[in-house]
Amino acid sequence: MEAHYDLDKDIAIIMFAVIMAGGSGTRFWPASRERQPKQFLSITGERTLFEDTLARIAPLAPAENTYVVVSRVHEQTTRQMLTGSPARVLVEPAGRNTAACIGLAAAHINREQPDQPIIVLPSDHYVADAARFTLALGAAAEAARSGAIVTVGITPTRPETGYGYIEVGDEWGERSERRFFCVRRFVEKPDRQTALSYLSNGGYLWNSGIFAFTPRTILAELKRCAPKLYAGISEIENAIGKAGYEAVLEKVYSGLESISIDNAVMERTQARMLVAEGDFGWSDVGSWQSVYELRTGEHDADGNLFTGEIVAVDAARNLVRSSGDRAIALLGVSGLVIIDTPDALLVADINRSQDIKQLPGILKSRGRSGAC
Amino acid sequence: MEAHYDLDKDIAIIMFAVIMAGGSGTRFWPASRERQPKQFLSITGERTLFEDTLARIAPLAPAENTYVVVSRVHEQTTRQMLTGSPARVLVEPAGRNTAACIGLAAAHINREQPDQPIIVLPSDHYVADAARFTLALGAAAEAARSGAIVTVGITPTRPETGYGYIEVGDEWGERSERRFFCVRRFVEKPDRQTALSYLSNGGYLWNSGIFAFTPRTILAELKRCAPKLYAGISEIENAIGKAGYEAVLEKVYSGLESISIDNAVMERTQARMLVAEGDFGWSDVGSWQSVYELRTGEHDADGNLFTGEIVAVDAARNLVRSSGDRAIALLGVSGLVIIDTPDALLVADINRSQDIKQLPGILKSRGRSGAC
Repeated sequence: MEAHYDLDKDIAIIMFAVIMAGGSGTRFWPASRERQPKQFLSITGERTLFEDTLARIAPLAPAENTYVVVSRVHEQTTRQMLTGSPARVLVEPAGRNTAACIGLAAAHINREQPDQPIIVLPSDHYVADAARFTLALGAAAEAARSGAIVTVGITPTRPETGYGYIEVGDEWGERSERRFFCVRRFVEKPDRQTALSYLSNGGYLWNSGIFAFTPRTILAELKRCAPKLYAGISEIENAIGKAGYEAVLEKVYSGLESISIDNAVMERTQARMLVAEGDFGWSDVGSWQSVYELRTGEHDADGNLFTGEIVAVDAARNLVRSSGDRAIALLGVSGLVIIDTPDALLVADINRSQDIKQLPGILKSRGRSGAC
Repeated sequence: MEAHYDLDKDIAIIMFAVIMAGGSGTRFWPASRERQPKQFLSITGERTLFEDTLARIAPLAPAENTYVVVSRVHEQTTRQMLTGSPARVLVEPAGRNTAACIGLAAAHINREQPDQPIIVLPSDHYVADAARFTLALGAAAEAARSGAIVTVGITPTRPETGYGYIEVGDEWGERSERRFFCVRRFVEKPDRQTALSYLSNGGYLWNSGIFAFTPRTILAELKRCAPKLYAGISEIENAIGKAGYEAVLEKVYSGLESISIDNAVMERTQARMLVAEGDFGWSDVGSWQSVYELRTGEHDADGNLFTGEIVAVDAARNLVRSSGDRAIALLGVSGLVIIDTPDALLVADINRSQDIKQLPGILKSRGRSGAC
């Protein structure tokens, strides 16, 4: 296996990447659908979030070391996007949250390189500065070789209540260009007042959901913190490369506990938990409002973010996304998100972006599953 | 010719109706288009405004006495709507405003019945109480047999700046169930303060654009007040029923002055001008906002007026018109007009309804004539 990444310190290391692409978002309806979740949308630029994630991880892990974990319904789309790439696709028989997803990928990589670092990251995030991302994640992965679980925390820029936080402890290790700190604790999404205090007092970072660890470390911690889940993963691992693998995966994986890696391991582990501060301009792109805010550079003079040709008269601060050839005209409206697709139209207050996820369910209950 | 209308007084009279359907409205874009103007839309109920107008005039004038004046581009649509009806269609070679339109129809009717009353009315108005309309217009037509020009004024219910007004003078004639007043003057659309004073002081009615007169009266007044226009109409009248009619119409009509009947005759005439107060619930349906206000009985509990199936969460006072099968969802928005058609979408502040007419021109200037 070829050494791929050359850190500043000139130490060539082998790395793996696990891209978690199992989500089926509803927050971007009607652009996102059950069959086309957020990660397969081009909402932050010309490429899809998934393609951006692949490109971002490429300088760190070679494609043959990249595992993409997807649900069955998105397998075909994912394989199409990966055409020509040696990246590997792991299909979840059923969605079982991030602990199972990471366990499954770690089991596969454990068979090859139990002591090389894996970078685990969601497929649907936004990063402004890819070069800084590479440096931060490369260093995190290197630190993970010590047996630590390393996460990347993002410096808060606002009292965000939609993210979890990491409370930062003492600095760890010898002072180098990249500093690591011990994790004091993981904190669930706070209320606004708490978020404000985190922002003003400092010492808290946003939990990005990006981790680095070796297969040996994470599997040992799964065994200790979530023994039942680990037993299932272990059973699957033993079947890898054998004829009965698919049947074992199908049977065992569907029975695994559905729990996040944060709840299952990060909040309980006795392994060394480190955090590096991320300074690469990050967002989990949680709503149309966050898309609007991420793309301020593309706003017109009235603060509109238009995808497609829109006629706007006295219209300001709207996000409008047109698909196809329909003429769209706005008159005297502001602060709206308007998503126009061939079979569904959304008109919403952009401040209500978080509530868009309710709509597919309501449509289903009215017999409009086709538009979900 | 059969006597058709039986007034309260048991005097059977013969009447004609002229429906002016030449307009090409842009105020209802994108529901209205160049080829499908307002009068051919079902915006106040299930039938089109044109069909409503035909039904409303039917108790007053038999269909064979009904003339519909249309522009060439709408001739086919109009004839289709009149399939099976003996109503007559007069096609304007070019739009030349109401004086020419009324002159043309009066010339045709003058050949048959120069002294029977004609009711002239636009094709795109709304009337709430058809029975009262029949009584008011029947009486106006009867009064027109005296040689008067009779108009119907609508009691103002708000300080409307979008209508012309009629200043009412002394009562005319012997007191009967239906009272007529002399017209003191016609007033152009006032500013808001003037409209407020009209409303509070009384003595002013909205100009509905509905008139009654005999062919002899209106042609004589055209001759006196607009001699050049009359000369053209007279030339056309002389060609009626002859082989060269179409050629004469084409040549002469297009050269006629484009002027409203109000400017050409009503504001200058020395004939007796009478006005009857209309109490039948009238609107010129000038905008989506007026459609919204006319149809309060159809609003949902949140004041939304929906045509088509709409999913609404925390949405109030919106007018939404869906065409076709697209799923439409609203979230947290209010006071919008949303018109969804297969090739064009409008999202506007309903208070800006009057400005919608700008949009087709802007679309044309951007090469989107197809959606105009």
